[in-house]
Amino acid sequence: MADQQFDKIALIGIGLIGSSLARAVKAQGLASSVAIATRSEETLERARELELGTEYHLDAAEAVRDADLVIVSVPVGASGSVAQQIAPNLKPGAIVTDVGSTKASVVAQMLPHIPKGVHFIPGHPLAGTEHSGPDAGFAELFRGRWCILTPVHGTDKAAKRRLATFWEALGSKVDEMDTEHHDKVLAIVSHLPHIIAYNIVGTADDLETVTESEVIKYSASGFRDFTRLAASDPTMWRDVCLHNKDAILEMLARFSEDLAYLQRAIRWGDGEKLFDLFTRTRAIRRSIIDAGQDTAAANFGRPDATPEK
Amino acid sequence: MADQQFDKIALIGIGLIGSSLARAVKAQGLASSVAIATRSEETLERARELELGTEYHLDAAEAVRDADLVIVSVPVGASGSVAQQIAPNLKPGAIVTDVGSTKASVVAQMLPHIPKGVHFIPGHPLAGTEHSGPDAGFAELFRGRWCILTPVHGTDKAAKRRLATFWEALGSKVDEMDTEHHDKVLAIVSHLPHIIAYNIVGTADDLETVTESEVIKYSASGFRDFTRLAASDPTMWRDVCLHNKDAILEMLARFSEDLAYLQRAIRWGDGEKLFDLFTRTRAIRRSIIDAGQDTAAANFGRPDATPEK
Repeated sequence: MADQQFDKIALIGIGLIGSSLARAVKAQGLASSVAIATRSEETLERARELELGTEYHLDAAEAVRDADLVIVSVPVGASGSVAQQIAPNLKPGAIVTDVGSTKASVVAQMLPHIPKGVHFIPGHPLAGTEHSGPDAGFAELFRGRWCILTPVHGTDKAAKRRLATFWEALGSKVDEMDTEHHDKVLAIVSHLPHIIAYNIVGTADDLETVTESEVIKYSASGFRDFTRLAASDPTMWRDVCLHNKDAILEMLARFSEDLAYLQRAIRWGDGEKLFDLFTRTRAIRRSIIDAGQDTAAANFGRPDATPEK
Repeated sequence: MADQQFDKIALIGIGLIGSSLARAVKAQGLASSVAIATRSEETLERARELELGTEYHLDAAEAVRDADLVIVSVPVGASGSVAQQIAPNLKPGAIVTDVGSTKASVVAQMLPHIPKGVHFIPGHPLAGTEHSGPDAGFAELFRGRWCILTPVHGTDKAAKRRLATFWEALGSKVDEMDTEHHDKVLAIVSHLPHIIAYNIVGTADDLETVTESEVIKYSASGFRDFTRLAASDPTMWRDVCLHNKDAILEMLARFSEDLAYLQRAIRWGDGEKLFDLFTRTRAIRRSIIDAGQDTAAANFGRPDATPEK
């Protein structure tokens, strides 16, 4: 258990990320009180049942009162209205951060509302699963994952250090980059993969010659891998698409261009081109495993069809 | 352990599938002798070290002598030459099958060489991992997976039943369909996902604004899922692309059309269209889990970042 770092933490939004934060803060004893806010009565009730915090609010403005650290974990499209709502009650010297998957848009939405004397430091933990809601969270979610901070001009160094220490206590490694670069990096490592996954699952769902039950039955031959990302939270991903539009459109254009090239190689029977591409992609998998960012076990170590020990 | 089903089984090709067959046949005691053939001296030596069979041959024609069951597990582009090579030594009454991912092409390549009195029954176990070679195989690979037989006109019913019983002894469920339908189904559930995965990994590898080390470092946010399929055997997948061209090109065209629609929704900020697509794909994931074709555990139950029990 790490030392207590904050007197009071406020968690705005208590879905997969918010509830994982709540559990981790509790497990590590990082704060003496944890206020939870969500606009949904049902979700708030569930958070209470799960004993995720010490106070529960439907009004985010109430939750942030006296908080030293405020973490906004809502779909990025809602960041602006949350900032506006909580602004009047933010304590001088408090740190306000978020966990949104797009950063330029979040800064544009939130920064204008943040009062002087409050430290606004946008952040993005690269952690998640395909499940959503307060029941989906778990304390170990951030362990071994990167958290990227994208501080704005003139950010207080001590506040930044304090926030980094918080993430490190949850098991994360902390990086820093500017918002524009963050949004480009995430467009390729996260947003494009999700969009492509949603798209291919949609394509399969629309076929006339192959039935949906066949798609499901035979999905272990590759397709099922894509259905995981395509089961992610629709509201969150709609907002990501709307709020990182330029970078996503650029990555989509490149992807489509490359796919046209590959398609042409298939049409003209150019085995050499296909073999070359299919060979160099192997090296990247290897590097990801060497970097500790995925398992070397076959099939992601899925419980089915793995060697018996 | 099941009953011994064949006196002698010949395995032509001893990669991931061939070596898994060898291990499963041994584990289940399905044959008294198992002949292994591969064109690579190094691979044959490795098969011998792993004690995968009872005889070892560089010449497939030698391996099939007196075999009751011959299973060809080579890249689909090599099926024709293997059939031609083994044909003179096939025993009357023997069953010849294969494990290729495309079926119309395999039938066209192999059938003309098969002598009268030999039962040729094409097959395709929908099982595999991203690893290749004789060390990658394991006896449980086929357990709970489908094996699709695509019998040609006039196939002997008893022979077909015998082959189905063999796959069932390995833990597979057996289905039957015609070659053309098989090739369409596989184009969507397996070939398109692999091609898209190879493509996106290639796109990421080619960026100038995001470094390769960033792609690797932050891959857990989605990208890593695609690198698994993109690490599959390049020769096998080159051959699949060349030998199921028509069905693959049709699926690629549909995929690209759908992607253009999605891209347009992103460009024009049409949140409703995005939300609708992102919602209906969730149901498919649910059905796949309900059908026992994937795990419900978050992140495929990967060993990292999962809840501690």
